[in-house]
Amino acid sequence: MKGIRQLAEHLDISIGTVSRALNGKPDVNEETRKRVLAAAEELGYVANQSGRALRQGTTNVIGLMIESNKDIVEDSDNFFLGVTRGLQSVFARHKLDLIMLPCPSDEDPYEYLKRMVARRVVDAMIISATQRTDKRIDLLTKAKIPFVSLGRSLSSSNSSWIDLDFDGVANSAVDRLVAHGHRRIAIAAPSNDVNLGYIFLDGYRRALDRHGIAYDLSLVIRAKTSEQGGYQVGHELLQLADRPTAVILIYELMAIGLYRRLSEASITPGRDLAIIGFREEPRAKFLQPALTCFRISLRDLGAELGETLLATMPAYGHFYPNRPRTMIWPLELVPGESDSFHLKAE
Amino acid sequence: MKGIRQLAEHLDISIGTVSRALNGKPDVNEETRKRVLAAAEELGYVANQSGRALRQGTTNVIGLMIESNKDIVEDSDNFFLGVTRGLQSVFARHKLDLIMLPCPSDEDPYEYLKRMVARRVVDAMIISATQRTDKRIDLLTKAKIPFVSLGRSLSSSNSSWIDLDFDGVANSAVDRLVAHGHRRIAIAAPSNDVNLGYIFLDGYRRALDRHGIAYDLSLVIRAKTSEQGGYQVGHELLQLADRPTAVILIYELMAIGLYRRLSEASITPGRDLAIIGFREEPRAKFLQPALTCFRISLRDLGAELGETLLATMPAYGHFYPNRPRTMIWPLELVPGESDSFHLKAE
Repeated sequence: MKGIRQLAEHLDISIGTVSRALNGKPDVNEETRKRVLAAAEELGYVANQSGRALRQGTTNVIGLMIESNKDIVEDSDNFFLGVTRGLQSVFARHKLDLIMLPCPSDEDPYEYLKRMVARRVVDAMIISATQRTDKRIDLLTKAKIPFVSLGRSLSSSNSSWIDLDFDGVANSAVDRLVAHGHRRIAIAAPSNDVNLGYIFLDGYRRALDRHGIAYDLSLVIRAKTSEQGGYQVGHELLQLADRPTAVILIYELMAIGLYRRLSEASITPGRDLAIIGFREEPRAKFLQPALTCFRISLRDLGAELGETLLATMPAYGHFYPNRPRTMIWPLELVPGESDSFHLKAE
Repeated sequence: MKGIRQLAEHLDISIGTVSRALNGKPDVNEETRKRVLAAAEELGYVANQSGRALRQGTTNVIGLMIESNKDIVEDSDNFFLGVTRGLQSVFARHKLDLIMLPCPSDEDPYEYLKRMVARRVVDAMIISATQRTDKRIDLLTKAKIPFVSLGRSLSSSNSSWIDLDFDGVANSAVDRLVAHGHRRIAIAAPSNDVNLGYIFLDGYRRALDRHGIAYDLSLVIRAKTSEQGGYQVGHELLQLADRPTAVILIYELMAIGLYRRLSEASITPGRDLAIIGFREEPRAKFLQPALTCFRISLRDLGAELGETLLATMPAYGHFYPNRPRTMIWPLELVPGESDSFHLKAE
């Protein structure tokens, strides 16, 4: 890689002139400027922004940490690409770039984050897949790295976060199923310690309570949030002596495996068993019967997440005054055919 | 964020002693070392590796550029997460970290890469979704940034690449279909300029030729490589006056939309139309009938890609001597039920 010194030597012009030409200063004549730019292109000169950034103590790069090993994001990575677009639309206003930091599956997310903080690659961080208690939040707070988390945690007492309305989704799913005559309603929850599992299950429990339905632990099925997990959910449902008439899924792609397992047992989704999924998603859209699910604009969510983060950063906070520090993101019900039948009274 | 100076002031110890304690030098007594480490933890001190890295001219970070807007990766992002695991397994040996650089959908990949190179965030790059001619290859070559591309290009005359065996897949798909009695075999190809589309189509054409089947342009259906694209392929197939009896897909998730469109027209995949998909994938596995496709270990591919890259880097090349600069990655046929019927002679 050519530096400015090599460029100046090649052109036989002073480093100062080359620098002024490259930076578009007016005191360089047009001819010289063109020669410098042409040579820079030809020799592959690239401005070393990292030296400048280090002097300023900034990198102008924001990191999005993703955990490829966590059940909850196992196959939902297009979720992150969707959010990424929204984040980038906001960061572009301030000439900031987004990079994704994928935590290796065999590494502790806390240790990984600690190392990435030490590398000083980013000015600020977005973390996701928050655990019930999450040491990463303390780490970033102590290290004074501005951050926002996608997901609440018991640890996030003073930090910024946006979380999906898991409680609201569980509530309206239960309401809808009860209105269709269901009383034995199962729920598929994550098998790990991700905080959203607790919130979702709490919402389900309270919704049942409102309808005077007893909470039955045998109807809570823990599974990986993947197609395979959905297949497993189907398998466990079929084992139950008093089989439920409906099931609510924490993750939409579970429906693919669940439909498959039910079909193997000659049970028709949307006729023999009511199913409500989570997020509306292209894959789920092509299921037959179409899955009842909840709509969310990932781009809007990403943009909001980006602004919430910038509001916490000294250099950008004044652009985003009075922004709430925390937010529950609503989802909109999209009725499908997977739960449209009414249960006959027994 | 606390620096070493603040830490020394807080402890009322010299900066030199603090530094030696933090770096585990033996000439610091145990008591002092413990005090320093406790204070570092408490005050959120983080070693500034970027200063060190800048002096060495390295960041110890490798970038993987992904293009979220390209049709070819539209929904195949779990492809990249799979590859990421393999890359990380290799980079971890050398204490290198991988970051992902997502090119915004409204930005030219070349301009984006130019900016990321200027930011000096990474020591080396992996690029993907190579175009027929790809200016990014010239850019990285000129800037002397070590790189490897996942995908060939007409531009990659001297650079390192690994590419999937699109030619081999097209060949064995055609062979298999011909052996089952098919002669009118359609192909779904990408609608954009990604290089793999050319290779795939070339392989298909030559395979037909080997079997004495004329190439028929009306059987080449251009579509987005997504579920929706597959739906569109189904739609176009149904419009054809002389309908093909088989179709080969460039992207496995197209099958989801294609199955849906066929079912709407009461056509049964695997009985009325033979279908061969591309990569074996959890979602495709749950399709009924199971899709005939090709197996690939993304982790192995990622590991190979990582070693091929390291072989080009001055600091790591000696660990990976005699490594081929380019490689075609084979895929293994996984027979399903989507193409198992034999066509009756007319």
